[in-house]
Amino acid sequence: MKTENLQQLLSDVASGRCPVDRAMTALKHWPGERLGCAHLDHQRRLRTGIPEVVFGEGKSVEQITLIMQRLLAGGEATLATRVDAEKAAAVVAALPELTYHPAARMLTANLPDTSALDGRRTILVLSAGTSDEPVAEEAAVTAAALGNRVNRLFDVGVAGIHRLLGQRQALEEAAVLIVVAGMEGALPSVVGGLVDKPVIAVPTSVGYGAGFGGIAALLGMLNSCAPGVTVVNIDNGFGAACAAGAITGLVDRN
Amino acid sequence: MKTENLQQLLSDVASGRCPVDRAMTALKHWPGERLGCAHLDHQRRLRTGIPEVVFGEGKSVEQITLIMQRLLAGGEATLATRVDAEKAAAVVAALPELTYHPAARMLTANLPDTSALDGRRTILVLSAGTSDEPVAEEAAVTAAALGNRVNRLFDVGVAGIHRLLGQRQALEEAAVLIVVAGMEGALPSVVGGLVDKPVIAVPTSVGYGAGFGGIAALLGMLNSCAPGVTVVNIDNGFGAACAAGAITGLVDRN
Amino acid sequence: MKTENLQQLLSDVASGRCPVDRAMTALKHWPGERLGCAHLDHQRRLRTGIPEVVFGEGKSVEQITLIMQRLLAGGEATLATRVDAEKAAAVVAALPELTYHPAARMLTANLPDTSALDGRRTILVLSAGTSDEPVAEEAAVTAAALGNRVNRLFDVGVAGIHRLLGQRQALEEAAVLIVVAGMEGALPSVVGGLVDKPVIAVPTSVGYGAGFGGIAALLGMLNSCAPGVTVVNIDNGFGAACAAGAITGLVDRN
Amino acid sequence: MKTENLQQLLSDVASGRCPVDRAMTALKHWPGERLGCAHLDHQRRLRTGIPEVVFGEGKSVEQITLIMQRLLAGGEATLATRVDAEKAAAVVAALPELTYHPAARMLTANLPDTSALDGRRTILVLSAGTSDEPVAEEAAVTAAALGNRVNRLFDVGVAGIHRLLGQRQALEEAAVLIVVAGMEGALPSVVGGLVDKPVIAVPTSVGYGAGFGGIAALLGMLNSCAPGVTVVNIDNGFGAACAAGAITGLVDRN
Amino acid sequence: MKTENLQQLLSDVASGRCPVDRAMTALKHWPGERLGCAHLDHQRRLRTGIPEVVFGEGKSVEQITLIMQRLLAGGEATLATRVDAEKAAAVVAALPELTYHPAARMLTANLPDTSALDGRRTILVLSAGTSDEPVAEEAAVTAAALGNRVNRLFDVGVAGIHRLLGQRQALEEAAVLIVVAGMEGALPSVVGGLVDKPVIAVPTSVGYGAGFGGIAALLGMLNSCAPGVTVVNIDNGFGAACAAGAITGLVDRN
Amino acid sequence: MKTENLQQLLSDVASGRCPVDRAMTALKHWPGERLGCAHLDHQRRLRTGIPEVVFGEGKSVEQITLIMQRLLAGGEATLATRVDAEKAAAVVAALPELTYHPAARMLTANLPDTSALDGRRTILVLSAGTSDEPVAEEAAVTAAALGNRVNRLFDVGVAGIHRLLGQRQALEEAAVLIVVAGMEGALPSVVGGLVDKPVIAVPTSVGYGAGFGGIAALLGMLNSCAPGVTVVNIDNGFGAACAAGAITGLVDRN
Amino acid sequence: MKTENLQQLLSDVASGRCPVDRAMTALKHWPGERLGCAHLDHQRRLRTGIPEVVFGEGKSVEQITLIMQRLLAGGEATLATRVDAEKAAAVVAALPELTYHPAARMLTANLPDTSALDGRRTILVLSAGTSDEPVAEEAAVTAAALGNRVNRLFDVGVAGIHRLLGQRQALEEAAVLIVVAGMEGALPSVVGGLVDKPVIAVPTSVGYGAGFGGIAALLGMLNSCAPGVTVVNIDNGFGAACAAGAITGLVDRN
Amino acid sequence: MKTENLQQLLSDVASGRCPVDRAMTALKHWPGERLGCAHLDHQRRLRTGIPEVVFGEGKSVEQITLIMQRLLAGGEATLATRVDAEKAAAVVAALPELTYHPAARMLTANLPDTSALDGRRTILVLSAGTSDEPVAEEAAVTAAALGNRVNRLFDVGVAGIHRLLGQRQALEEAAVLIVVAGMEGALPSVVGGLVDKPVIAVPTSVGYGAGFGGIAALLGMLNSCAPGVTVVNIDNGFGAACAAGAITGLVDRN
Repeated sequence: MKTENLQQLLSDVASGRCPVDRAMTALKHWPGERLGCAHLDHQRRLRTGIPEVVFGEGKSVEQITLIMQRLLAGGEATLATRVDAEKAAAVVAALPELTYHPAARMLTANLPDTSALDGRRTILVLSAGTSDEPVAEEAAVTAAALGNRVNRLFDVGVAGIHRLLGQRQALEEAAVLIVVAGMEGALPSVVGGLVDKPVIAVPTSVGYGAGFGGIAALLGMLNSCAPGVTVVNIDNGFGAACAAGAITGLVDRN
Repeated sequence: MKTENLQQLLSDVASGRCPVDRAMTALKHWPGERLGCAHLDHQRRLRTGIPEVVFGEGKSVEQITLIMQRLLAGGEATLATRVDAEKAAAVVAALPELTYHPAARMLTANLPDTSALDGRRTILVLSAGTSDEPVAEEAAVTAAALGNRVNRLFDVGVAGIHRLLGQRQALEEAAVLIVVAGMEGALPSVVGGLVDKPVIAVPTSVGYGAGFGGIAALLGMLNSCAPGVTVVNIDNGFGAACAAGAITGLVDRN
Repeated sequence: MKTENLQQLLSDVASGRCPVDRAMTALKHWPGERLGCAHLDHQRRLRTGIPEVVFGEGKSVEQITLIMQRLLAGGEATLATRVDAEKAAAVVAALPELTYHPAARMLTANLPDTSALDGRRTILVLSAGTSDEPVAEEAAVTAAALGNRVNRLFDVGVAGIHRLLGQRQALEEAAVLIVVAGMEGALPSVVGGLVDKPVIAVPTSVGYGAGFGGIAALLGMLNSCAPGVTVVNIDNGFGAACAAGAITGLVDRN
Repeated sequence: MKTENLQQLLSDVASGRCPVDRAMTALKHWPGERLGCAHLDHQRRLRTGIPEVVFGEGKSVEQITLIMQRLLAGGEATLATRVDAEKAAAVVAALPELTYHPAARMLTANLPDTSALDGRRTILVLSAGTSDEPVAEEAAVTAAALGNRVNRLFDVGVAGIHRLLGQRQALEEAAVLIVVAGMEGALPSVVGGLVDKPVIAVPTSVGYGAGFGGIAALLGMLNSCAPGVTVVNIDNGFGAACAAGAITGLVDRN
Repeated sequence: MKTENLQQLLSDVASGRCPVDRAMTALKHWPGERLGCAHLDHQRRLRTGIPEVVFGEGKSVEQITLIMQRLLAGGEATLATRVDAEKAAAVVAALPELTYHPAARMLTANLPDTSALDGRRTILVLSAGTSDEPVAEEAAVTAAALGNRVNRLFDVGVAGIHRLLGQRQALEEAAVLIVVAGMEGALPSVVGGLVDKPVIAVPTSVGYGAGFGGIAALLGMLNSCAPGVTVVNIDNGFGAACAAGAITGLVDRN
Repeated sequence: MKTENLQQLLSDVASGRCPVDRAMTALKHWPGERLGCAHLDHQRRLRTGIPEVVFGEGKSVEQITLIMQRLLAGGEATLATRVDAEKAAAVVAALPELTYHPAARMLTANLPDTSALDGRRTILVLSAGTSDEPVAEEAAVTAAALGNRVNRLFDVGVAGIHRLLGQRQALEEAAVLIVVAGMEGALPSVVGGLVDKPVIAVPTSVGYGAGFGGIAALLGMLNSCAPGVTVVNIDNGFGAACAAGAITGLVDRN
Repeated sequence: MKTENLQQLLSDVASGRCPVDRAMTALKHWPGERLGCAHLDHQRRLRTGIPEVVFGEGKSVEQITLIMQRLLAGGEATLATRVDAEKAAAVVAALPELTYHPAARMLTANLPDTSALDGRRTILVLSAGTSDEPVAEEAAVTAAALGNRVNRLFDVGVAGIHRLLGQRQALEEAAVLIVVAGMEGALPSVVGGLVDKPVIAVPTSVGYGAGFGGIAALLGMLNSCAPGVTVVNIDNGFGAACAAGAITGLVDRN
Repeated sequence: MKTENLQQLLSDVASGRCPVDRAMTALKHWPGERLGCAHLDHQRRLRTGIPEVVFGEGKSVEQITLIMQRLLAGGEATLATRVDAEKAAAVVAALPELTYHPAARMLTANLPDTSALDGRRTILVLSAGTSDEPVAEEAAVTAAALGNRVNRLFDVGVAGIHRLLGQRQALEEAAVLIVVAGMEGALPSVVGGLVDKPVIAVPTSVGYGAGFGGIAALLGMLNSCAPGVTVVNIDNGFGAACAAGAITGLVDRN
C-alpha cells in the first residue's frame, strides 16, 4: 500500500475532487483491497515472487491440462508438481510446449535462462539415498524455475560419511543448501555442522515401519543439533526450493 | 581449516623444517583437531558462524557460571538461553560483565555493535500473542548477538488481522522475517502470503489442551499454504535467529 | 416431561376418560417423549430437525438405492453424502427423482424451496482452497436441504488474505458462517476475528505429509485464537451444516 | 470501528477542519489503531462481541492485577479465567471491585444484569461428572457475563442415563446447550439425539491413563453419532460460552 | 498338570517299572510337554476351551482351504473369520461341509447344538449402528460356535437412546453382554450403567477423520465412566465372544 | 420394565386402589426402575452391583472426608481409591471407622465378610513386577469389598517365566483372573494361554521412556495373541475388580 | 585409514618423490577419500562387513534386474529383499544365476558355504506366529548369506508357552537369537529371561486394530522386562541379521 | 538347570535314597524353584548373566537401603540405577560399602576387577552431547560391573563430525560400541557406517519441543540407514550395557 495513494485520496477529498461518500467507499476495506478511485490487483506472484504452480496429485489429466493451458496463456514460468509419467504423457500430448522431467515428476514451461548466473544464486541440492531422488529433483527443478543455478550432490547419506566429506568444495560454493533425506533424516545435521550457509532440510517419506511415512525424518530434522537448520513439510521439495529462492532473491537484490 | 596451514606444514616437511614423525602427529587427527606443529582450535564458530551458546535449562547456577566464565575468557560474543531470573541474578553476581535480558531469559556479553547496520541485515521478529514474547525475544536477542539489526512487531495474531495489515512498511523493510506463534500457529501463513522475503516460523508451546505443547502450532506451520515458509523446533527462538543470521550473513558477503 | 401431563393422564384414567390400554400406549415410551392420549411419532427428524441421511461411503449401489427408495416413499427431504459420480449415475438410473450434485458428491430429492428466505436464515460457506470444494459443497447442499439460504465464498485462504478482506459485506450479511479449510486450517481464526456471528470450522483432509490427513487442520481449528469458533470432524461438511441449521432454526423460531 | 468516526474525519478534511497530514497520521494505522484526531480504541469487543479476558494460568498476581486494573478503568465487563483461589485472594485484595467465583476459578466485574432476559437467551450448561464442574462453571459464568440467562444441569453422565432423561423440560427450555464431559465424552451424543437446538461440546481433561488428558473425550465428541454437535478445545469452557453467546446474540438481534 | 501323573511316574521309577533314562526323557521338558511314559497332547483347546480358528484376512483361498481341511478332519467345531464372500465361495466349493455366514464374514462347521441352552448361557450382542454389523455378527456367530445361546440387539446407538431403553427386558435376560460400537464408542457406557452383568466392549473401525480407524471408539470404551466395562481390540468380535464364552463356561460349570 | 407392572398400576388407579398422587410418585422416576406403589431406591448400586466409590486423586482431605461421611451414614460398603498415606491419616483421624490399606492406597469401611466363600467367588490377582503392586492391591481390595475371596500371585513377570509355571494350581483354583502388568504388558498373554477362565488385563503406568506411561502395556494387552483376554484402562485396578465381581456375581446367582 | 599410507606419503614429500601440491590434493579430503598418490576405494562392505543389498519394495523389475546385474558382475554375495513372487520370476528369467526364496521374499546369489561352521556362528531365528514367517525367513536367509549357520524355531508364541519351553536345547546351542513377533511382541521378553546370549528382537506388522502396523509389538519389545534385549525397526529381518552377523563375526575373529 | 541334578534325583528315587514324597516336593515347582533334596536357587543371574539391579527411580531411601542390604549379603556385584545424589548420600551413610557414581547416578558394590581384561571385552561408550552424559555413564558403569573394560568417547555429536572422525582408532579397538544420543539421534548411523562391530544405540530424552522426550531420537535410531544398528529404550543405558555384556560374554567363552 503506497503512501502516495492515500495522500492523493485525501487531497482529492480536501479539494473536492473526490466526494466524501466515494472516499468512504474507497477506504471502507482499506488496506485490504482498493484505494483511491481505481482498483488495485494484488497478485500473489507480485507479492511473493513465486509463480502459480499446479499440485498434480489427485488431479485428472483433464484438470491439469485445463489449468496449465490457462497459465501458459500468460507466458510466464509455469510448473506442475507430482505428475506421474502416464498423466504427463497425456498432458504433453495436448500441450506440447510443456517439458516433462520424469525424475522430478514435474511439467514445466517458459523457464528462465539461468546459464549466466554467478555463485550468488547457486543452490546445492543434496540427498541421502537414491530413493530420495524424486523429492530432491522436485527441489532442483523448482529452484531452476525460480531463476537459480542448481548443483546436485545425491546419495551422500550419513552411513557412508566419507562420500559427503569428499565434497567440501561443492558445499562451499553454494549460497543455499537444500538437504533431502528420509529414514532417520540425519544428513542436515551433518551438513549444518560443516557450513555457515542457510540449510533447508526436507524430510522424505522414504522408509518403512517406525519411519511412519516421514515422521522419523521430520522429527530428526526439527531436533537437529546443528543450530540454524530449518525444515519444510515431508516430501515438500517444492517448498524448500521456494524458501531457497526467497534467499537467493534477497542476495541478488543487494 | 585454512589451506595455508596445510601448505605450510607440507612445505616444512619438504624443507626438513618439520620432521616426518612430527608431521605425522600433526596430521593424525586432522581435520579433527590439530594442524601444524602448534595446536589449532577448530572452533565450530569459524565453521558455522555461530558462537558457543549455553542452553541453560536444567543446568545449575554453578554449571552456567563455570561454562560462561570459560567462554568470557575468549573475549567473544557469549550467550546463554533459558535462564530464569533467579538463576540469572546468581550468575551475574559472579560474572558482572554479563547482561541479563529478562524478557528473553538470556545472558549475554561482548555483543557486537549493530548500530551502523543498514537494511540488508535487518531481521524482523513478529509474534502472535503476548505469551509468545519469551520465544520472540530469544530470537531477537540472539539475532542481535549475531550482528543483525532487529525490529520487533509483537502481538499481531491473525484473530485481529488488521494489526498486521497496518504494518506493511515494517514487513517490507526487513531482509528476513521470524514469525513466532503458538496455539494454531497461523501467523506465518499470513505473513508468508504478504512478502517475498525468507520467512522462518517458530511454533511456541503457548496454548493448552489440544495444543499439545506446541504440536498444533508446529503442524500448522509445516502445512502452511504459503510456499517457502520454513520451520524450526517448538520454542526454538535461538535456532530461528541462527537461520536468519546465516541468511543475512550471505547477503552481507555478496 | 411435564408433571401436569402425567397428572392429567392419571386423572383421566381414574375418571375413566382414558381407558387403560390407551394409557398403556401413551406411557409405553415414556419419558421418551410426551404423555397424553395421542400418539407420538418417535422420529429422530422430529426430535432433532435433521432428515435421514445416507452415508454413501463404503455402500454399494444396491444398498444406496434400496435405502433411498424407502426414504423417498416418505416424500420428505432425502440426502445421500459421499457418493462418487459412477455410483451416483447408477442410483439415479434406478431412481430418476434424485438429483446428483457432483461437486458435493451428494444425491438429493424433495429439497425445500428456499427462494423466499430472508437473511436470518443465510448461511455463508467459505473455503480456503480449491481442493476443499467437495467438503464445502457438502456443507452448502446440506444447508440448503435443511431449509437455509446459502452463499459461497470459496478459495479465500489466508496466504492471500486480501481475497477475504475484500469480501467484508458477504461476511456481514450471513447469520452463520461455515469455514472449510485443510492444510494448516487457519482461515476460521481470521474469519472469527472479523465477525460476531457463530463460526463453525470444518477441517479437511486436504494436504500431505505432516498434514496427517486433516489432523493439522483439526488441531489448528481447536486451538484457534479467535474465541467462539467451534469445530466438527475432519471432512464433515454435513455435520457443520446440521449445526448451522440448528442455529438458523433457532433464529427463525424466535 | 464506527462508520461515523470515519465520516466525521473525512468531513473534517473536506471542510478543512483537519489538515491532510493530520488525517494521514490518523488513517495511517487504520483500522489497526487510531482514527480521527483523538485516540480510538479498536476494541475487539466491538468486532466480535466478546470482552477482553485475562487467561490467568501462568500469570503472576502482579500481572493479573495490572491487566485487570487497566480493563476495569474502561468500566466494561471484565473477566479473568483460570485463577486459583490463592491468587484470586491477592488480586481481590488489590482490586476489591472484583468478584471471585471459586467453582469457576474466575474473577469478574461489571457483569451485565441478566435478570430480565427471556428464554431466547437461555443457555443450559450440562456436565457429566462432578470433576467437570470447574470447566462447566467457567462456561456458565462466562455465558452470564456475555449477557445470557444460564441454567445448570450437572452430574448427569451417561452411566446413569435416567438422570438426564428425567430433565427433558430443562433441555427443551434452552436456546443453546453447552455439554461438558471428560472420560469418554459421550454425553453430547446423547443430548444431541434428544434436542433440535445447537449443542456445543466441551471435552475436559478429567480422567487418567488412556484418557490422555482429554484426548479420549475430544475424539469421542468429534466422532459423535449425533450430527450437528460442534466441539471446542479441551477444558475450554470460556470458548464454548463465546460460541453460545454468538448464537444467542444472533437470536436476540432478529 | 495332574499330581497323580507325577506320582505315578515317580512310583514307576521307584518300582523299576520305568527306567531312569526314560523318566529323564519324560521329565525333561516338564511341565512343558510330556509326562509319564505316554505322550500327552496339550492341546490349546483343552487348555483354554477355544477351538482353532483361521484368521482369514490376508490368506489366499488355497491357504484357507488347506488349513480348514486339516481342522475338519478332527471333527471339531471349526471357524474361519474375516473371509470375504468371493473367497468364501471358492473355499466352500472345495469343502462343502462348511457354512458361510455373509454378515459375519465367517466360515463354520460342526457347530454345537445350542437349542436346549437356558439363560445361564445367553449372550446378548448389541451394536450401535448398521455399519457395526460385521463385527457384531462375528461376535454372535463365534459365541454360538462356543456353545452359547445368542441374542442380538442391533442399531441401538446413543444418539437415539430410546431404542435401547425400550429393550430393558433383553438386557436383563442376558448373562453376558457384548457391546459393539464405532465412532465415539459410547454405547458400552450407557449399557454398563443399566445392568449388573459383565459387559465386554468392542470398538469398531467404523467412522472417518478423527475416528482414526477405531481409536476414538477404543479410547472412549477404555475411559468408560461405567466401572467394570472391559475392552478388546478394534473390530475384534471374535475375541469378545471368546471372553464371553469363558464367562458362560464358568457359570455352566458351577 | 415389565408391562404387567404398568398395567397393574394403571388398573389400580382406575379402580381407586392406588390414589393419583401415589401413582405420581411411582411413575416419577419411571422407567428408572420399577413400577408399583412401593418406593424404589434408584441407587446405581442396585442397578450395577457396585458401591459408591470416591476417586481420591486430586481431591482434598476435606472433600474426601465429607463424601465418605455421607456414604458411611448409609452403612454400606464404602471405598476410596488413590488416597496417599498422608491424606489417609488425616481422613482416618476424622472418620475412625475407616481402614487404610497403604499398599492399595485405599480407604474402606463396612466391607462384607468373605471368610465363608467357596471357590466360585475366588478371584486371583497376578502382577508382573513389584512396582505393579499398588494397582494389583487396588484390584484385590476392591474385589474383596465386592464380596469375593481374593488370592494374590505377585511378581511373576514373563522374564522369569518359571515363577508363573510353578503356580499352576493357583491358576486353576480361581474363577476369574486379574493380571496386572506394566512395561511390555506380556503377562496376560501367557496367563491367557494357560487357563480357560476369564482373564482381565490391567496395564500399569510402570516403566519409562517408550513405555509412554502405560501405553506400551495397554497396546500389548489389546493385541494379546491369547483370545479372550479383555482389558481395562491404565492403572484401573478398581475397574478390573468391578468386572471380575460382575462375573463372580453371575456365577453365584446361578 | 592405514598409518603406513600416511607415513609413506609424508616420506615421499620429504624425499621429493611426491611434490607438495600433489600431496595437497591427496590430503585435501583426508580421511574422507583418498590417500597417497593412488586412489583408495573405501567400500562400505570392507568397512562394515555387509554386502550391498537391494531393497526391492517399490522398485520395478527393470530396476531390480539392472542393479543386481551390476552386483553380480562383482562375483560377491548378492541379496535383494522384499521381492514378491511375480517380480522375482521376471528377474530370475533375466538373471538365472539368482535363487528365489519365496518364504523370505528374497533373491540371492553367490552365497557363502556355511556347511562347515561350528556353533560359534550359529544364529537361532524364533518366530511367534505363522504370519511372522516372511520376516523371520528374511532374517534367516540374510544371516546365512552373511556366513552363519542358521537354525529356525517358528510358531512358538507366548500364548502356548510350552512350545518354547520344550525347546531349551535349541536355545542353548545358539550364539545369538533373533526373535520375531507381531501383535503384542512378548516373545523376546520370555526368551531374554531364559538365555544369557544376545537377543535381537524384530517387531512385525502382523496384527490389526490397536496393533497399529507393528507399533504395539515395537513398544512391547523396547519396554521388555528382560534387560539386554535390543530392537530393530518393524519388519526389519534384514537388519536383525546384520546385527547378529556383526556379533558372530566378532566371535569368529577372537 | 543342570541335567545331572535331575539324573541324581531320579537315581536317588530308583535307589530308595530319596523317598517318592520327598522327590515329589523337590519336583513340585521344577524347574521353577527347587531340585534335588537340597534347595536350588535358580537365580536369574545364573540364567542370564545379569546381576540383580535396583531401579532407584521412585523408590525411597528406605526401600533402596533395604533391598541393597539384602543383595550385599550375597556378596555379589550389586547395582542401583537412577539414584540422585541426595538419596545416594543417605543410602551410603547406612551402607558404607557402597560406592556412589554421581555422573552415572548409580550405587555399586563388589564390582569385578577388570584391570587385566584384553580387547575382546572392550566396550566403547560414545555420546553425542554433554547432556547425554548421565545415560552414557550409566551404560559405562554397568558395563564395567558386568566385567568389561570400558572406554569412553563423549561429546562427539554429528554437528561436528570431525570430532568423531579423528578418533578412528578408538572405534577400531572396541569389541562392541554403545552409542548414546538425544535430539535427532543421528550418531549411531554415522558410527554404524564406520565399523563392522555390533553397535547398540541408546536414545536419550535430551532435547525439547518436537524431541518429545526422546521419541525423535528413538525413531531416528530405529530408522538408521546403517544396517545392523540395534536399539534399546529411551535413557536405558543399563539395558544397552547388558546387551553389550551378553556379546562380550559370548566372545570370551569361545
